[in-house]
Amino acid sequence: MIVNAALIQKKIGDSPDENRKRLSEAIRSAARDKADLIVLSELHNTRYFCQSEDAACFDLAETVPGESTAFFGRLAQEQKVVLVISLFEKRAAGLYHNTAVVIEKDGNIAGKYRKMHIPDDPAFYEKFYFTPGDLGFEPIKTSVGKLGVLICWDQWYPEAARLMALKGADMLIYPTAIGWDPNDGEDEKKRQLQAWEIAQRAHAVSNALPVLSVNRVGFEEGGHGGIEFWGGSFIAGAQGEILAKADREEATVFAAIDTEKTEKLRRIWPFMRDRRIESYGDLTKRWGE
Amino acid sequence: MIVNAALIQKKIGDSPDENRKRLSEAIRSAARDKADLIVLSELHNTRYFCQSEDAACFDLAETVPGESTAFFGRLAQEQKVVLVISLFEKRAAGLYHNTAVVIEKDGNIAGKYRKMHIPDDPAFYEKFYFTPGDLGFEPIKTSVGKLGVLICWDQWYPEAARLMALKGADMLIYPTAIGWDPNDGEDEKKRQLQAWEIAQRAHAVSNALPVLSVNRVGFEEGGHGGIEFWGGSFIAGAQGEILAKADREEATVFAAIDTEKTEKLRRIWPFMRDRRIESYGDLTKRWGE
Repeated sequence: MIVNAALIQKKIGDSPDENRKRLSEAIRSAARDKADLIVLSELHNTRYFCQSEDAACFDLAETVPGESTAFFGRLAQEQKVVLVISLFEKRAAGLYHNTAVVIEKDGNIAGKYRKMHIPDDPAFYEKFYFTPGDLGFEPIKTSVGKLGVLICWDQWYPEAARLMALKGADMLIYPTAIGWDPNDGEDEKKRQLQAWEIAQRAHAVSNALPVLSVNRVGFEEGGHGGIEFWGGSFIAGAQGEILAKADREEATVFAAIDTEKTEKLRRIWPFMRDRRIESYGDLTKRWGE
Repeated sequence: MIVNAALIQKKIGDSPDENRKRLSEAIRSAARDKADLIVLSELHNTRYFCQSEDAACFDLAETVPGESTAFFGRLAQEQKVVLVISLFEKRAAGLYHNTAVVIEKDGNIAGKYRKMHIPDDPAFYEKFYFTPGDLGFEPIKTSVGKLGVLICWDQWYPEAARLMALKGADMLIYPTAIGWDPNDGEDEKKRQLQAWEIAQRAHAVSNALPVLSVNRVGFEEGGHGGIEFWGGSFIAGAQGEILAKADREEATVFAAIDTEKTEKLRRIWPFMRDRRIESYGDLTKRWGE
């Protein structure tokens, strides 16, 4: 099966309404260009509020289903596309998640994923806002395949990618909001961007699955000097090869993904055959010494 | 601590004696250039005999300790270097392994690793020759740090790299013998080489550990049209950045590795802090559906 995928890489402004409007335009445009799977970046409705710890920001959270799933649900139905959206989920008073929702072509919710690995470092105070996900690593079944949706910090964990693969994911999808500390030098920035890209491309390689990674772009001010979101959204094929890639401008990244390559690749490089599962038990330990 | 590492990338000829002699010269030369850790490629004493299944090839196997550990042990002691060598281990009649041995600067054996993941595909009939390793994933303690030695096919398994990291490895080391099917087109060859490189560099990224990967070069004839060993030996820093890299010629790859970077990186990108170990249990399953 060929899936025409599009990633929407945008600057995100102050107004959630305006952000949703701009994203809608990009989604309509990608749908006109025959995309049947469209992925938005992490927390695309708002500025990256996790640059500081501010209890007032919990006002930005919403339920699932709720405002965003209704808004993007109508759009998915209208455009007959599968949409992967990302939002700040309010589950109960004092209980919030960083959640991606997959919407089917009929506008219904196909499933959701709650970010399992939550970062926390200066300017990325996510542990203040988000309880770690409790839905595990379960691909979401859609008309364009089983989507292994993960979110941002998850991208550094080969465990997450592997678990999605073992559960039958047809591709891995990473909505992301990652950028540079403007105080870092060019060499360090380059190393970070490369590390981010190859870590995810390697998930493609290890699992023989396409990988779609969607980041925002632009500078957003904040207490630690702000974040320069580095864009670089890309679609990699199941050998980790780059099929399409954005730079540091707003862009829609398109690629036709052949999901049958996974089977072909797993025949010539049969990694799944040889996993030493009886020797992997220590992966569930915090530290092995 | 700074470790001056050298990888010896060579063509391997028909004569084991001649191969050992050429490797010795390269080791002496690298030691003169101040290397204190020198790594040889997989099964460096012989042509890659696994291109066919031939019971006579079991004659190539040797014990540990044995001929190679004595030969390279003397050299390690003479040159005061830590050596990582690779050999076809005879453990008992009918029981063989693909084994790497680490030799300390005093010529003694510091430890050994038996290849855990054994490949088998046309021209790489390793399952005929090698019983999968039964020593698990244990770094080997040396005067230049704890070496997470893995071998070739292991490189495709993030589980192996992670387990070595969890056991306190200071670096990951992959002796390898990998190459192209000459019948493949240039695009496919490029994708395979890139996949191989980024998969290993990603182990560096995920674990904040340097990665040293050593391949052979040159064409070796065989029943399936032979193998074009692609060289490309490289040393990556703990962010996955390439520190030094060979092309498709014989070469010694040098880099000064700063093992203190691991601690620094794990502070700014603290992946180890956030592993969801309670949700990783299915990694020990064959398939997750």
